[in-house]
Amino acid sequence: VKAGDLPTPALVVDAAAFGHNLASMAKALPGLRCRPHVKAHKTTALARRQAEIGHTAFCAATPREIVGMARAGLGEDLLLANETVDRDRLRAMAECGGRVTVAVDSAETVAAAADEGIREVLVDVDVGLPRCGCTPEDAPRVADLARASGMTVRGVMGYEGHVVGNPDRAWRAEETQKSMVRLLAAHAEVGGEVVSGGGTGTFDLNRWCTEIQAGSYALMDTAYAQLGLPFRQALWIEATVVSTSLRGWAVADAGLKSLGMDHGDPTIERATVLFCSDEHVTLRPDPDAALAVGDRVRVWPAHVDPTVALHERMFVVDADGSVVDEWAVDLRGWDA
Amino acid sequence: VKAGDLPTPALVVDAAAFGHNLASMAKALPGLRCRPHVKAHKTTALARRQAEIGHTAFCAATPREIVGMARAGLGEDLLLANETVDRDRLRAMAECGGRVTVAVDSAETVAAAADEGIREVLVDVDVGLPRCGCTPEDAPRVADLARASGMTVRGVMGYEGHVVGNPDRAWRAEETQKSMVRLLAAHAEVGGEVVSGGGTGTFDLNRWCTEIQAGSYALMDTAYAQLGLPFRQALWIEATVVSTSLRGWAVADAGLKSLGMDHGDPTIERATVLFCSDEHVTLRPDPDAALAVGDRVRVWPAHVDPTVALHERMFVVDADGSVVDEWAVDLRGWDA
Repeated sequence: VKAGDLPTPALVVDAAAFGHNLASMAKALPGLRCRPHVKAHKTTALARRQAEIGHTAFCAATPREIVGMARAGLGEDLLLANETVDRDRLRAMAECGGRVTVAVDSAETVAAAADEGIREVLVDVDVGLPRCGCTPEDAPRVADLARASGMTVRGVMGYEGHVVGNPDRAWRAEETQKSMVRLLAAHAEVGGEVVSGGGTGTFDLNRWCTEIQAGSYALMDTAYAQLGLPFRQALWIEATVVSTSLRGWAVADAGLKSLGMDHGDPTIERATVLFCSDEHVTLRPDPDAALAVGDRVRVWPAHVDPTVALHERMFVVDADGSVVDEWAVDLRGWDA
Repeated sequence: VKAGDLPTPALVVDAAAFGHNLASMAKALPGLRCRPHVKAHKTTALARRQAEIGHTAFCAATPREIVGMARAGLGEDLLLANETVDRDRLRAMAECGGRVTVAVDSAETVAAAADEGIREVLVDVDVGLPRCGCTPEDAPRVADLARASGMTVRGVMGYEGHVVGNPDRAWRAEETQKSMVRLLAAHAEVGGEVVSGGGTGTFDLNRWCTEIQAGSYALMDTAYAQLGLPFRQALWIEATVVSTSLRGWAVADAGLKSLGMDHGDPTIERATVLFCSDEHVTLRPDPDAALAVGDRVRVWPAHVDPTVALHERMFVVDADGSVVDEWAVDLRGWDA
């Protein structure tokens, strides 16, 4: 089967680009220096490739991802890089059979984790992104609460998510340093071996974390492609042209229900994307790239994470376009 | 179980608002005057309520929705209001046991439908939205091709999708009329009993179609809410506050993977939404509406269709917040 024969829309992984991305990261940040983020792909088959190349510790955004990774035999060192007070899900993680560490940033998250049997935590620190994390000044209190509840504090985490996507590399470097000054201040008080943070956009700039939580690097997207990173776009949506207009546009069958749209419209080679609807992308082909009904186009998503979450599977293709593997996107949703 | 006890994020339907919406539409456009669009909810349990109130003909955007509706016993009159040249899926629709009509706008879509056993079509006409549909002038040719292939042409369809979302009612009325002049010109040449078009935003303005393809009216969203229609917002995402900051924001666990983002950020009562991440919404509560970790918030999506596609189920709640029903979003994806 060729990619061009797949029913559409279909999520397609370029095996060569994907392999290049995994090898590049494993060279830059070998072994436990990279803790791949499962939220970017939600696919245990893909995570297994990351583990095989040496990254055997993972982080995730949902309890469902944690439990699914453990069930798939990938539970050597799993970090919920997120806060939750869901008692049932905390207990499910505690009992999933893997080594599970969770992020905490408040008395409430500490109490819920401890009550449900979680044994290890990281203190999550606000390093500048307006999201989760306590202040560096509050971190020792949170750590003390965790220890008083019988849990081990492995260290700290802090995600410079406000920095990772900026195309100016010098600015990213400078702002990452500012963020990590905050994180290291917390770490000096909290202790522990782990300083976790970073992302695809700062993987080689963040020299302060002991481990980098990179996710997008494996598959990439058009937003991250603007940063000039050494990773290639490895994921597209295969789509079929279903209509063409004498007024100059064509319509392909990939739309809002196959594409994460928070970073804007997708990109199509040799065409201008006009807009997306539920099941359609309307595009204007370049003058020398006319399209007919039945033709295939590759639709490159702007943001990989929410795109993957809309699909049940990915098809892996080789350089000839032959489908060589099929991976279930098996960590979708929130119920394990 | 109360809505406040559901694991989050959870898609919640307000039974009273939903009932009001169904009753209002059934009064305005009884029976076959409304052909509800399944793409807006992808849920056969919801469609069954629409059928029970008299709308026994449906339209859909994917073959998977068509086949699923037929399997659920809702196949009395199903319209694929979309083009496809996927042979396997056309055959699956032809053999699904329901009465299936498909939209065609080209020689290719006619040939594929006829070859795979589809018996009835509508000619899809471009009435101003840059998407599918032939020109009114080309419609007789497409109809003749369909008839020459042995299919019955039931009439025409044309969706004024460029009109339905504009908040200016007078403008919507004027532009709908312009669109329908184009559709009726095609109908005069093509013939057939059906003139299908319209949407929630033009349901009471489009006086030219024999049937209105309204979908969003059942659940609604914040984009459509701006139009002052007689339908209430009946769908929210129940979310839990997982972190609060001394810097003034709170974080709840509904993000890009629970919300269609193409129409922008969701809305939260008594708060300002700052931004969404994969599994988070960061919000600034109003001064008199402080939030603590563990509190619940209702996140109102900007666009219902892609929001629903991210969830496995909806929970229906009564006025007391008690969960009275659970509906599987069983028409997701593209594979039947």
